[in-house]
This record gives sequence, structure tokens and C-alpha cells, in this order.
Amino acid sequence: MDHELKQITVAEFLYKEKQLWGFENPARALYQTIREYVENALDATDLYGILPNVTVIIEQDEKDKSICTVTVEDNGIGIPPQKIAEALGKPLVTSKFKIRQSRGQFGLGAKAVTVYALSTTGSPIEAYSSPLDSERVYYVKFSIDLSTNEPAIYALGSWRKSTKWHGTRIRARIRCNWSYARSRILKYFEMLAIVTPYADIVFIEPDGTIHHYPRIVEKMPRPPKEVKPHPASLEKGELQMLLKRTTARTIKEFLISTFQRVGEKSALNVLKLAGIDPSKPPQSLTDEEIERLHKALRSYKFPAPSSEALAPIGAELIEAGLKAILKPEFVVAVTRKPRMHSGGHPFIVEVGIAYGGAIEPREQPLLLRYANRIPLIYDEKADVAWKVLEEFNWKHYGVNFPAPLVVLTHICSTKIPWKVGSKEAVAEREEIKEELHLALQEAARKLRHYLIEKRREEELREKISTFLRYIPEVAQSIATILGEDGVTPDKVQRLLLDTLRRRMKGKELQVFEQQVKNLSKVKIEA
Amino acid sequence: MDHELKQITVAEFLYKEKQLWGFENPARALYQTIREYVENALDATDLYGILPNVTVIIEQDEKDKSICTVTVEDNGIGIPPQKIAEALGKPLVTSKFKIRQSRGQFGLGAKAVTVYALSTTGSPIEAYSSPLDSERVYYVKFSIDLSTNEPAIYALGSWRKSTKWHGTRIRARIRCNWSYARSRILKYFEMLAIVTPYADIVFIEPDGTIHHYPRIVEKMPRPPKEVKPHPASLEKGELQMLLKRTTARTIKEFLISTFQRVGEKSALNVLKLAGIDPSKPPQSLTDEEIERLHKALRSYKFPAPSSEALAPIGAELIEAGLKAILKPEFVVAVTRKPRMHSGGHPFIVEVGIAYGGAIEPREQPLLLRYANRIPLIYDEKADVAWKVLEEFNWKHYGVNFPAPLVVLTHICSTKIPWKVGSKEAVAEREEIKEELHLALQEAARKLRHYLIEKRREEELREKISTFLRYIPEVAQSIATILGEDGVTPDKVQRLLLDTLRRRMKGKELQVFEQQVKNLSKVKIEA
Repeated sequence: MDHELKQITVAEFLYKEKQLWGFENPARALYQTIREYVENALDATDLYGILPNVTVIIEQDEKDKSICTVTVEDNGIGIPPQKIAEALGKPLVTSKFKIRQSRGQFGLGAKAVTVYALSTTGSPIEAYSSPLDSERVYYVKFSIDLSTNEPAIYALGSWRKSTKWHGTRIRARIRCNWSYARSRILKYFEMLAIVTPYADIVFIEPDGTIHHYPRIVEKMPRPPKEVKPHPASLEKGELQMLLKRTTARTIKEFLISTFQRVGEKSALNVLKLAGIDPSKPPQSLTDEEIERLHKALRSYKFPAPSSEALAPIGAELIEAGLKAILKPEFVVAVTRKPRMHSGGHPFIVEVGIAYGGAIEPREQPLLLRYANRIPLIYDEKADVAWKVLEEFNWKHYGVNFPAPLVVLTHICSTKIPWKVGSKEAVAEREEIKEELHLALQEAARKLRHYLIEKRREEELREKISTFLRYIPEVAQSIATILGEDGVTPDKVQRLLLDTLRRRMKGKELQVFEQQVKNLSKVKIEA
Repeated sequence: MDHELKQITVAEFLYKEKQLWGFENPARALYQTIREYVENALDATDLYGILPNVTVIIEQDEKDKSICTVTVEDNGIGIPPQKIAEALGKPLVTSKFKIRQSRGQFGLGAKAVTVYALSTTGSPIEAYSSPLDSERVYYVKFSIDLSTNEPAIYALGSWRKSTKWHGTRIRARIRCNWSYARSRILKYFEMLAIVTPYADIVFIEPDGTIHHYPRIVEKMPRPPKEVKPHPASLEKGELQMLLKRTTARTIKEFLISTFQRVGEKSALNVLKLAGIDPSKPPQSLTDEEIERLHKALRSYKFPAPSSEALAPIGAELIEAGLKAILKPEFVVAVTRKPRMHSGGHPFIVEVGIAYGGAIEPREQPLLLRYANRIPLIYDEKADVAWKVLEEFNWKHYGVNFPAPLVVLTHICSTKIPWKVGSKEAVAEREEIKEELHLALQEAARKLRHYLIEKRREEELREKISTFLRYIPEVAQSIATILGEDGVTPDKVQRLLLDTLRRRMKGKELQVFEQQVKNLSKVKIEA
């Protein structure tokens, strides 16, 4: 029987199964190419405290409109010359395998573009890079050798800089479908502008149309810091692996040096709980001891994980973004406290709600999803945020559909549990689902409060206006009955209004004064 | 700036991003483990013409119910001893990288289970295998070394067989959630039974409950054959790669030896079209020549791809399966002709419709999805079949919801464009979408025909029954009016019925006779 085994490289796997990484058809492949490059550009800037300037250009081949060249340029830290081809052309190699929030996570995105270009047009990628402190620009033309999994270099060059530019410029020539992809790509940039108001982004369409998303704020969020893993919610196998790989000499030292939130005292407490000698070498633990240590780590109450590795957008910025783009009558945003999901990865959930104003009423809320500041456009129904929204009881919060309601969700984490290789949907982790639900509740409660206030005000306005409608008539009648000189209807009306005024306060008085003003206006006009 | 690059192995990637391969949470991980092992078991049997016997056992740890041991045993061809650890413990190694339909495709499934077991319980996998022609059983206890990407062997053994068993038996100990996973797993086996009626499957729950899906038919579908790629719809980059890798000495020879459906004549025609000398060595082609050859291959009319590599279920078997499980009043199935999707992969689409009978009415059709005979349970809304169904106009086919309607879709291909690593949703390829739509139309047309017939028959029945209701009375009246001896109402009635009978035929007559029978019965009873 032909049980002949064959091995392929990761590059070949990317080639064979392009659709797993978002290169499903020429339209989506164009969108995915732009995403991967733009997110690399943003990671190369804001992660290092640089205000991002990003330019994206799509050009179509004259002879064949289904071939596009995508160019993305940033003002980031650049890539050292000897690392360019590897960073962009070798799968599972990246500077982003760190415990801190970044857009990149797999070490596959730019490589999948390289493979897609290779398999469709056969064209290599062109990259120009100038590191921050360098006086030269480096050029590499490269692709991937599928059979060796190594970058294949076509051309190399370098020259002295004539400007102060630093950063990376990358070009890929791919099979595409611009007209099918256009609306999604524009939506992507619009959504990106909402959560990256500190970036200046220029996007140029094939026909030359320029979309400029200017920098609105100069203040950047604090860049996330690299941290150690948190000891709680580790799986036993994960602990075993860490024990095997550590260079610490004792198990106590292992605990302190490997994890965050573990000091001398808590390390000793945990080891006491597990009945393990603190001076034991980590590699010498028996399976039973590992089991006990695992249990002790799970049950010990460590402080919550550090949020230093995370960079949430912040309620203020979310509200500003939603206001600027959607022009709603009401907006609220909530940033939750950090929690952990599987294996001790901290995450923060943020939810924004925009209501009314220029928002069109819909049969269900419009959902704007983000993860680590990445707008998510495709695969909405596979996303955990969609599930939470689907199960949410809006009636309870005074919202009856059709309603002009937009919900923004943002999950940021040192590790996003991406459900698909194209990074378009977040997997359903209980902890994340719970936080999303709580954040949505919190924001929806504020919306309910606003809606109740609004309704109350409307009722008040209605009441006072009904009341005021009869005032001129009543004043007239009283004046006629009294028949005295000097008791004009106007005077009676003023007296009546003053009496009422004394009995009102706050919102009621405010509405009253406003309507009285209108009342006089009407009179004057009449 | 810290542009420190780090590389990880594929095994480490599987470990870090478990959720990409379906190991999203403990419930889904259990389901995924069973899927991967069962599909390997079926590939090891029916691909080689063996009627499958598969046993699946789930056991829960006594101390901790969230730890399960999954055992799957088959009667397949087995794995040679020296290849067991590699076949099950080395990522991107498989015997399934061939152009022919199989359930496995990535070379990652069983390895992802191995990594999941390692990371959650730390337990190695245990495999027993006895190849078809071997007199021994081989045992390997293994895991994966994440840092080297190689299998890590814990124990090895072998002994002389005491039975005639051949095949593989594999055990994994993993973190799980049986109570959450149960209904999905049972649904999986039920759906599997529909399209694998030639398999005998036993599934034992942790509490000992046995589910037996017995073999219903002894006839197996012809195993798919390995074929060469089809030359049409190749991308230029793909052609370039094939040219680079070939051992053919001339470009003509390259075309004939690399592709199916290319003979001496068509090779020469294509090369003439491209203006390339047939005796040119393949590696010597210029970029421009490759461009021309690519165009020529795309425009030349080759015969349709061979379907030898495919094993559709067949309309007959689909209808039988739907009937047996769903007990509908109407069932129809359609198997389309083979076509190609991206890069020349042949595929066949099959659609079955079941209507009425024991099927519950629903607001939308119940969709049963399959790809290469694999039941697809999760991520329904991300699947191309769901999209086709969503856009389908059922009213046009006389179906008004709520309706008792089940739709089965099966896509089989030498390469399924899986959208997610967990193989639960098929990506949206235009060609596949189109075929699904056409197949659905074809089946729905037959349903419409049935529904129209059914309505017509109901109307007929109504008409005849209204008519017959008055017959006894009329007969009585006539008999009384005539008042003659021997002219009993019964005789008049018989005469009337005979007159009517002579004017009827076909379905009408059939309904008439049936109702007359009921009529006499009623009379006798009365």
C-alpha cells in the first residue's frame, strides 16, 4: 500500500492553502495585501512612539486590469538591511513573537503576500528600507523559494539618503479585482481612521482619486511594553514546557523569573502549597510534582495581570472617533479592566455605542469590530462580538428596532485568539465573551439613561407646551373679567408665568423658559 | 530599535495558535480530536477499498472530568512501524499531498491533536498499528518536540499478532468538555452515517452508552485515483514554478508529462499558439515566453478534467441516506458534472433535498453540509453553501416558509478550498458557488414539480370527494323517481359510477377508485 509520506515547507503550505490566510479570491486578496502591509506600517510606527504617516497606492496594469501593484510606505523604524528579506520573506519569522499588543502576531502576513504574488503573477516583492539611525536607503527585490522555505534574492542595492526619510516602502504585484474590492477597502480605511486618529493616512485609487485621512490628534497612546506571562490559568502541558526550557537553577527562581506578579513571597507560598522544596532544580520535578505545582498555581490568588503590555484606545478617543465619523446625537464608550484569557494572556475589552443623529435606523445594530486596533470587515458572523450582540436584549435598555444604533467593539490583548488565518474573526473564549457582554451592558445602561431622560424631556415639553397653549387665552379672559385699567392680558400673562416659574426648577424650568421664549416670539410675530 | 527577529517552528505555531485548527475551547477541541482521528481512519480504509470498521471511545478521568482520553481504532491499511511517529507527529508531513480526493489535506490534523494534548495535559499520544501484510503490531508512544519540530519518542514496542486485525489504534489524553461537546459529536456521527452507509461505526460515550451506526450497504464507492493537474486556469506564477521543477527535456514533453488532457497534438497546438519552439528546454523559457504560454494554455479548449480523482456520493446513495434518517415524504438528489476551480482542481457538487414527512417545518431550510464526505458542523454562516442557500428564491419553487425542508450539499474535490484551518467552512470560489446554485436549482425544480403534482392531486381529491358525496343521494332519488323493480339505489349508483369511470383516466381515475372504495366502506359500515 502506498503509504509514502511527503513533507512540504511552510511556504508551500501558504502556497497550497492561500485561502486560509485571506487570499480566497482576487478581490479579497487585494484587500488582504493592503491590510497586511498597512498593519506592518502601523506596527513599525506607533509601537515605537512615532506618529504614523502611511501612504497606500494601488495601480492597475495597463494591459491587464486584473493585475495590480500595491505600494505601502511608512515613516517607521525601518528594517536593518541584512534582515529585510528574512523579515518579509521567511514564514514564521518576525519581531512580533513577544508578550505585548501588536497588530502582527503570526509571522505570516507579509510572507503570504509574497507567496500570493509568486503564485499569481510570478513577480518578486520590492522593498526599500531606511532604519531610523541610518544614512542609507536599502533595496531588496526578493521572493520565497518554496522548496527551501528561504527568501530568494533577485536584486540588492543601497544609496545615500537625500531626505530625512526613515521607514519602509514595499511593493507587490498581484492578481486582483479592484472593482469588487473597492468598497471593502474604503470601509477598512474609514474604520481605521476612527481608532487611529493620530495617524495620517493617504490612499490613492488606481484612477488617481486621493483619499486623505488626516491626523486629528497629535497625542499618541502609550506604546505597549513587553511583559512576562501571568502564572494563573496556565495548562499543565504549558507549565511542563516552560520548566523544560528554563535556565533558572531552582524552582523558586524559575517562578520569579518566568512570570509576572510572582515575587519571593508568593513563590514560596505556592511551593509550600504544592509541597515542593524551593531549592529543587526545575528540570528535576516529577510528573506528580508538576501536577501539584500546576494545581497550586491555579488556586493561588495572584494580583491581576499587568496592563502595561496593552494599549487600549480609551473611552475618550472612541467617543471622539464615533462622534467625528458618525455624527450621532448620543455617544458613550466603556473601557473595562484587564483580565486574562487562556494561558494567562491579558486582554481589555472596549465598547462604544453611538445613537441617533445622522445614523440611519436599522433592523439590528451596525457592528464595528476591532481587535488590537485592526478593523475587522469580513466573517462578521463568525466573530465572538457578533455572538454577544446577537444574544443581547436591547428591549431591556429601551431600544426598539428599527433603531439608529451603532456598536463598536475593541478587544486588545497580547494574544488575540484569531479564529481564521486571515485575522478577520476572534474565537469564542468564555472570558472575552463575558467581558464583551459586561462592557456592552455598561454602555447600554448609559444609553438607556439617556433615552429615558430624552423621553422624560419630551413628555415634559409636551406637558408644558399643552399648558402654555392656553395661557394667552386664560390671560385674556381674566383681563376681561377684571375689566380694570392697567390689567392688560399681557400683564396677567406675565403674572401667571411668574407664578408657574417659581414652582419649577432644573430641567423643567429650562424647558419652560425655552417654550416661554417661543411663546413670546409667536406672539410678536402674530 | 529592537528589530530582533525570532523564528518559530510549525509545531510551535500550532501550539501558539491552537484555535486556528479548531482547538478553540475544551468542548470544540474534543470534537476536533474525534473528527481528525475518525477522518484519518476513514481515509485509511475507503481510499484503499476496505469497508471501514471504526470504533471511537471517550473516557473521562475519574479525578478530573475535564480530562478525556479519546481512542479511535480502524481496520485500515495501517502505518509502517518506522513511519508512525512521523505520520502522526510531524507537521506538514502526510501521505495525502496528492491530486485525489481525500479527507485529509493539510498534513496537520493529527499533529494539532498531538500538540493540544502536549499543551493541556502534557500527555504523549499512544499509537498501535499493524500494516495490512504485517504479522506484528507496533506500538509508539510519542509527542512533538516543539523546538525541533520533530517527533519525540517516549516508548516503542512490537509483538506478534494474535488476531487478523490490521489498521491503526490511536489514543490522546486532552483537556475537554464532554457535556458541552456531546450534542455536536452525536450530530457529527449521524451526519457521517448518512454519507458513509458502507461504514460500520461504534461510538462509546464516557458513561458507557453505545451508539452503533451499522453498515447499511456493502457496496463501496470506487476509490479515487491520483491524477495530474489540468492545464487550464493555472496562474502564471504556478506555471513558472512547474517549469522550474520539471525534469522534462523539452517544453513539449513538459506539457504532456505534467498535465492531464494534454497529448502530442494539443501540446503542439498550444506551443504554436504561444509561438514557442517545441524542442526548447523548459528552464530556458524567457519571462515573455512564459507569459505567452500562460495565455495560450488559458485560451486553448482542453477536454474537461478527469473525474477519476473524485468520489462523489452519488444521487442514489444521498437519496437513500436522507430517506433512512429523515423519513421525508419527498426526496431528490442531483450530482453535477465535474468542473474546475482555481489552479485546475476538479470538483463535483451534489445537492439533495428532503421535504415533508417526519421533517419539522422551519423558518428556513435546514442545511446539512459536507465536503469530501466530511460532515461540517461549525461555522455554517461562513460557508459558501450557506451563502448560496441564503440567496436562493424558494418562493419561485413553490416553497413557502415555515416549510419542512432539508438541503444537503456535498462538494468533493482534489482540493477543498477550506476557509478555516479547522476545516469547517468552504471558501467562496465563484465556480463552486455557481455549481451549488445550479445543482440546487435542478433539485428544487424537481421539488416544485412534486409540490405542484401534490397540490393538483389534493384539488382533484377534493373535487371527486365533493362529487361523490352526493352520489348516494342522487342514486336514491333516481331510484325512487323511476320506482321500478330491480332499480335499486345501489344499482343506480353503480351505473353512475361506471359512467364517470369511463370518462376518467390516469391519476384522476386512481384517486376516483380509491375514494369509491372508501365510499363503499362507509356505506357498509353505516
